[in-house]
Amino acid sequence: MKVAIWGVGLLGGSIGYILKKKKWSDKVIGIGRNSSKLEKAVSLNAIDEYMIELDDRLSEIDILVLSVPVKLMPNLVKRALPYLKKGAIITDVGSTKEYITKEIENILPKDIYFVGGHPMAGSEKTGVEALDPYLFENAIYVLTKTKNTNLSAFEKVKEMVKKLDSTLLELDVEIHDLAVASISHLPHILASSLVNTANDISNNNQNIILSLAAGGFRDTTRIAAGSPEMWRDICLTNRDKILYAIDKFKKELSNFEENIKNGNEEMLTALFRNGKEVRDKIPQRRKGILSPMIELIVFVPDKPGIIGDITKILGRNNINIKDIEVLHIRENYGGSIRVGFDVNKENEKAEEVLKNAGFEVKELK
Amino acid sequence: MKVAIWGVGLLGGSIGYILKKKKWSDKVIGIGRNSSKLEKAVSLNAIDEYMIELDDRLSEIDILVLSVPVKLMPNLVKRALPYLKKGAIITDVGSTKEYITKEIENILPKDIYFVGGHPMAGSEKTGVEALDPYLFENAIYVLTKTKNTNLSAFEKVKEMVKKLDSTLLELDVEIHDLAVASISHLPHILASSLVNTANDISNNNQNIILSLAAGGFRDTTRIAAGSPEMWRDICLTNRDKILYAIDKFKKELSNFEENIKNGNEEMLTALFRNGKEVRDKIPQRRKGILSPMIELIVFVPDKPGIIGDITKILGRNNINIKDIEVLHIRENYGGSIRVGFDVNKENEKAEEVLKNAGFEVKELK
Repeated sequence: MKVAIWGVGLLGGSIGYILKKKKWSDKVIGIGRNSSKLEKAVSLNAIDEYMIELDDRLSEIDILVLSVPVKLMPNLVKRALPYLKKGAIITDVGSTKEYITKEIENILPKDIYFVGGHPMAGSEKTGVEALDPYLFENAIYVLTKTKNTNLSAFEKVKEMVKKLDSTLLELDVEIHDLAVASISHLPHILASSLVNTANDISNNNQNIILSLAAGGFRDTTRIAAGSPEMWRDICLTNRDKILYAIDKFKKELSNFEENIKNGNEEMLTALFRNGKEVRDKIPQRRKGILSPMIELIVFVPDKPGIIGDITKILGRNNINIKDIEVLHIRENYGGSIRVGFDVNKENEKAEEVLKNAGFEVKELK
Repeated sequence: MKVAIWGVGLLGGSIGYILKKKKWSDKVIGIGRNSSKLEKAVSLNAIDEYMIELDDRLSEIDILVLSVPVKLMPNLVKRALPYLKKGAIITDVGSTKEYITKEIENILPKDIYFVGGHPMAGSEKTGVEALDPYLFENAIYVLTKTKNTNLSAFEKVKEMVKKLDSTLLELDVEIHDLAVASISHLPHILASSLVNTANDISNNNQNIILSLAAGGFRDTTRIAAGSPEMWRDICLTNRDKILYAIDKFKKELSNFEENIKNGNEEMLTALFRNGKEVRDKIPQRRKGILSPMIELIVFVPDKPGIIGDITKILGRNNINIKDIEVLHIRENYGGSIRVGFDVNKENEKAEEVLKNAGFEVKELK
């Protein structure tokens, strides 16, 4: 397989690296605008060679992977089409699918195929320097199908996705976009609206309100810190689904509003209870932690090295910590630490050895 | 000082324990309904003695602390008033202030005083067994003033709050309730509405949508997992401020909605950017961590004891970890860990020793 990757950053670079390493692809060509970044990608084994201006090497390509902002994709495809051979496949890694699928299917000749993709993987790092051989491992990788999808092209992209060790999920374009509108785009818009609201009210009240908003409020609105340009594009390329989700949301919010106005105790309890029940059912596991965890709370004095003491005790007993978080530590006085273990009796052993070492421990339900 | 605490759970029990321990109070009487829990409180030194039925011992009391759900408070005050001596002070620890202040000021005789309070402290534990001598340390403890507030009573409660090692903040009742409506109650209602919305859309689409909602969505909606009854009461006792905040929020959301509808790129970017800027300015420190932290990301292989290795290296170099969190670990392959340090060159030393030990480290901005 010969692959071209347009946009060799974290995602594109990781795809190239893995496909080369696993020898699924005997040639990976990078396409981009910045030759020093593309040189870097070559030196990191993310790609074999690169082009800044498109040339005939593109006609050897079996799969072209688009790893650039969604809004740029249609134009790049237009530029690539004259070079692509019959049977070539185009796929993308964009986070909205209906817009790009329609745009590309509209301009695609019959014998070149498109399969939309969305790997739900990311990192706190960016750029090809951050390429990660395990970026996609256990992450959900959505491939979308339409009535125009060529099935053997779909199977080929599926094969590529499996090489990345992702968990494949086939979805309709519409369902995909509705899903990300509901669980990603709407939450982001709400977080931004919430921050803007609190800021507005605070500005009208001696700025005292936001100054109280440490900790929890900051956590709740974490997603509002994303790139404004990226989120603008997401809104514009998933417009209808986002508007649908906002509309549904406004009805749910009005439901709360009406019942608060009328003081309807029963309905308010039911609304909050429904939210709690649904939320409690959402799977806790994160990407890469497929097995569920058991979590212990360890109460500790605050002294230098206390976290080291705990991890040393566990390490000495060959107990593997899957997750650890300081819940709160008071200076000079200590606090509590959450430690997660695999569900395989390790948690019981951990509880025992920590208690034997004099720590107060309880299981988190 | 003789103190009575009505409701001897985590908050009430911790208050009693600290005031006794610091000898600010030579007698603490617990009031409640469950004698075995009150016995437990006595054995834990949270209170000296207790009463189930009110009796003449209440007439010795200088301060009565109400640590029960807000909706129950007015009735309890009515029951207590006949026993209280002239000059006695009532204070509370409720999370909304206008409702209870009005209710109590309405029934209070001239020579008994009320000072509203709200300690912004909590724990993942509940009940008197969880009493914590340092629960309030560095936490903000709001005391509210009205035109009816007796200033010497206010000073007395202030003295009590300082004994708890809290950071005192004097606020008007209205500003307090508007602040908690904006930064606590509104976010909670939005999280519940969001979960209900996603559930609704998911139910109409083969339940596939919520099944994609692991990790981030779960984190964003964490607050929706609170007690439905408590949140119902909060809505009912902070009705006007919450409705005001919802109204402001709906306007912010409509702003997004309109600009998505019209495809107004500039305005959308500006709205997201404003949210990002405000959010980035919110102080990161949590309760108890007054000094800001510097955070490092350490990239690690996943092997038993790897967290122990890191903490050992830091401990050996006398570097104190203030916070630690596993960002993501892939089974068999590793991942990254976030470690927080005091801003006092410890972070630089930490970066150095970890790099010397062969770890890839970068500072989190």
